Amino acid sequence: MKFHMPVKVYCERDCVKTYSDEWTSLGHKALIVTGRSSAKNGALADVTDSLNAHQISYCIFDHTEENPSIEMVMQVRDMGIRENVDFVIGIGGGSPMDAAKAIALMIYHKDKDADYLYQQGDSTALPIVEVPTTCGTGSEVTPISVLTIHAKRTKSSIPHRIFPQYALVDGKYLASAPKKILVNTSVDSLGHLIESYINLGASPFSRMISEYGMALWKDVKPALLSDHVTDEDRDRMMLTSTLAGMAITHAGTTLPHGLSYFLTYEMHIPHGQAVGYFQPGYVAAAAPETQAKVLELIGCKDIAEFANLIHTLLGPLEIAPDMVDTAIKGIMANERKLKPVPYEVTEETLRKFFEMAM
Amino acid sequence: MKFHMPVKVYCERDCVKTYSDEWTSLGHKALIVTGRSSAKNGALADVTDSLNAHQISYCIFDHTEENPSIEMVMQVRDMGIRENVDFVIGIGGGSPMDAAKAIALMIYHKDKDADYLYQQGDSTALPIVEVPTTCGTGSEVTPISVLTIHAKRTKSSIPHRIFPQYALVDGKYLASAPKKILVNTSVDSLGHLIESYINLGASPFSRMISEYGMALWKDVKPALLSDHVTDEDRDRMMLTSTLAGMAITHAGTTLPHGLSYFLTYEMHIPHGQAVGYFQPGYVAAAAPETQAKVLELIGCKDIAEFANLIHTLLGPLEIAPDMVDTAIKGIMANERKLKPVPYEVTEETLRKFFEMAM
Ligand SMILES: [Zn+2]
Ligand SMILES: [Zn+2]
Repeated sequence: MKFHMPVKVYCERDCVKTYSDEWTSLGHKALIVTGRSSAKNGALADVTDSLNAHQISYCIFDHTEENPSIEMVMQVRDMGIRENVDFVIGIGGGSPMDAAKAIALMIYHKDKDADYLYQQGDSTALPIVEVPTTCGTGSEVTPISVLTIHAKRTKSSIPHRIFPQYALVDGKYLASAPKKILVNTSVDSLGHLIESYINLGASPFSRMISEYGMALWKDVKPALLSDHVTDEDRDRMMLTSTLAGMAITHAGTTLPHGLSYFLTYEMHIPHGQAVGYFQPGYVAAAAPETQAKVLELIGCKDIAEFANLIHTLLGPLEIAPDMVDTAIKGIMANERKLKPVPYEVTEETLRKFFEMAM
Repeated sequence: MKFHMPVKVYCERDCVKTYSDEWTSLGHKALIVTGRSSAKNGALADVTDSLNAHQISYCIFDHTEENPSIEMVMQVRDMGIRENVDFVIGIGGGSPMDAAKAIALMIYHKDKDADYLYQQGDSTALPIVEVPTTCGTGSEVTPISVLTIHAKRTKSSIPHRIFPQYALVDGKYLASAPKKILVNTSVDSLGHLIESYINLGASPFSRMISEYGMALWKDVKPALLSDHVTDEDRDRMMLTSTLAGMAITHAGTTLPHGLSYFLTYEMHIPHGQAVGYFQPGYVAAAAPETQAKVLELIGCKDIAEFANLIHTLLGPLEIAPDMVDTAIKGIMANERKLKPVPYEVTEETLRKFFEMAM
C-alpha cells in the first residue's frame, strides 16, 4: 500500500495572504483560472493582492464553465503560452481547480495537441496553486482532473496524475455561497469519504482519513439542515472536503461517482447532488459491519435515517425509467468504477440505488 | 494549520524490490548508510539486489554508530563526495536514517564545513531513500535528523528540514530483531503518538494521525507482552511507527523526548526506553479529558495500568538523585520542548515523571 500526498496544505482563515511569501515564489507570472463567483467571495482579491504585493504579474481567465471541456482547456492553455506564464492558480469549485491542472499540463507540453490530455505520457506540468471556494471536490489536494468529453457525451478524468504544489483552504470563501451549493458540495465530500472507504483500494492510510473525515462530517450535518451556518461550520466544511480529497487520492471513487457523470451530462444535475443520491444505496449494499461503521461515524442510526437525510437535503431524484436503464447499462460497462466495489454488483443492486433515491 | 508530508511511502512486504523501478531512478550512484545489523535482517541485500538489477552503482558505509555524531556525518560525506554519488539510502533504525539526511545535505553543500549542519540556510539535499529496520523512530517520513553534539554533551536535531523522497517500509526486516529492540522502539513510537497529541501544535491533521496510530498501538501491545510475535504483529509495528513519524512531523515531541536525550547521553539508555519512562507522567499531568482519550485509545483503563505496562516492558528507571536534578534543570531551560506542552510545567511536575518511572 502507498501513501502519497505531496501537496503543501494551509488550512486556516486568511491563509492566502499569510503564506503568500511561499506560494508567490513559484514563478514570475501567474495564470489565474476561475469562474465568476470568485470575485464575489473575495478569493480572487486575496490572490491578486498577494501577487501584487510580491510584484508577480498575472493574467486572468474568469469564464470557466461548469464541467470544463477539452475545448476550454485548450483555449486557456493558448492564452497561458501567449502570456508566458510560469504557474497556474485555480480558484473556485472543482471546475476551475480541475481545469487548472489540465491547463498547467498542456502549457508545459506546448507542442502537444488536445489528444495528449487523454494519453499516457510525461505528466510534468507547471506548478499549481489551488484555492477552493466550495466544500466538495477536494480537487485542491487530488491529482485528478475531470473534463467533459463532448464526443463521448460524458465526463472522465485524464490519466495524468498532477498534484498541486499548494492548497490554500479558507472557510471564509464559503460565506457568500448559496445554501444549495454548501449542501451539494458537502454531500459530494461525504460521497468521497464513503466511496473511498467502501473500496477494495482502501488501506489503513486511506481508512484513517475517511474515518476521521466522516466523524467531522457528522458535525457538518446540523448546519446543512439548519438556516444558520456559522464561521466554525464553514471551516469544518472546508476541512472535511480537503480530507475527503486526500481519501479519494488514495482509494478513488466508485459506483455513485460513475453513475453521477451520466446524470450530470444528460440531466444537468450538479455533481454533488448527483453523487449524493446514490450514497444510501451504496452503503446499504455493503457488508453489515462496514455499513454499521459508516452509519455510526456519520451519526445515522440506520440506513433509513441516512436515506431520509439525503432525501431532505437533496429532494427526490426525478428520472425517467429509460434513463435509469441507460445509466445502469453504462455503469455495468465501466470497469474502472466497478472494480473497487467490495461486493457483487448486478443490475438489481444498481436498480436499488435508484429506488432509494426516488 | 499545515499539512505537509511529501514522502512517497510504500508499506508492504517486499516493497524494496517491488518498487525498485521507481526509487532506483533517483540517480546513477548511491551511497548506502547503514549499521551492522542490516546485513542480518535482509534489508541491505534487498537494496543492493535492486540496485544491481537496475545497473545503479553504489558504495556502502556500514559502521553507523548509535546516536551518530557530527564527526561521523562529515567523514561519510567526504566519502560520498569522493565517490560522486547522486543519492543516499539510509537503512536501519533512527541512527542511519537520521545520518543519511545530514549526509545528503552536506554532500549537496560540498563547500560548507560542519558548522553548516546547525546553521539556518538552504536545506536542499541529495535525494534520500529510507528503509527502516526497527519500528520506532519514524525517521523514514520525518524531515528530522538528530545528531550527537559531543561539545554540548547532548543530542539535538539540526534546523534543516529534509524529507526523504521514498520510505520503503517492510515488516519482514523486524523478524531478526531482538525482542528488546522491538519493545524499545515500539515504546518510542508510542511516545511520538502521545507527545504529538498532547501538544499545543496539534491540529486536526496531526490528531487524525495520532489517534489512528494510538488505536493501532493498542493492538501492538499484546505482542510486546508475549513471547510470540507474528508477521502480522511486525507489519503493524512498522505501520504504527511510520504513522507516529507523520504525527511528529506535524506537531513535534515535547518533555519526554527532551528528558530522554540527557538519559541517553549520560547513562547510555537506548532512545525508546528513555522516552518510554516519562510517558505515564506526561499523560498523567494532562487535562482529564485528554488523559481519558489517550488511555482509551491505547487500551489502558487508568494511569496506574499504563504506568504498570511501561514498568513491565522497560523495568524500573534506576537513576541517582543528582542526575534527576540535573535532568530537570536541563529541561526547564529547554524552551523548544517546554513550549508545546499544554499545561503548566514546574519542577514538581517533572519530579513526578521520574517518580512514576522509578
Ligand atoms: Zn465528487
Ligand atoms: Zn523518539
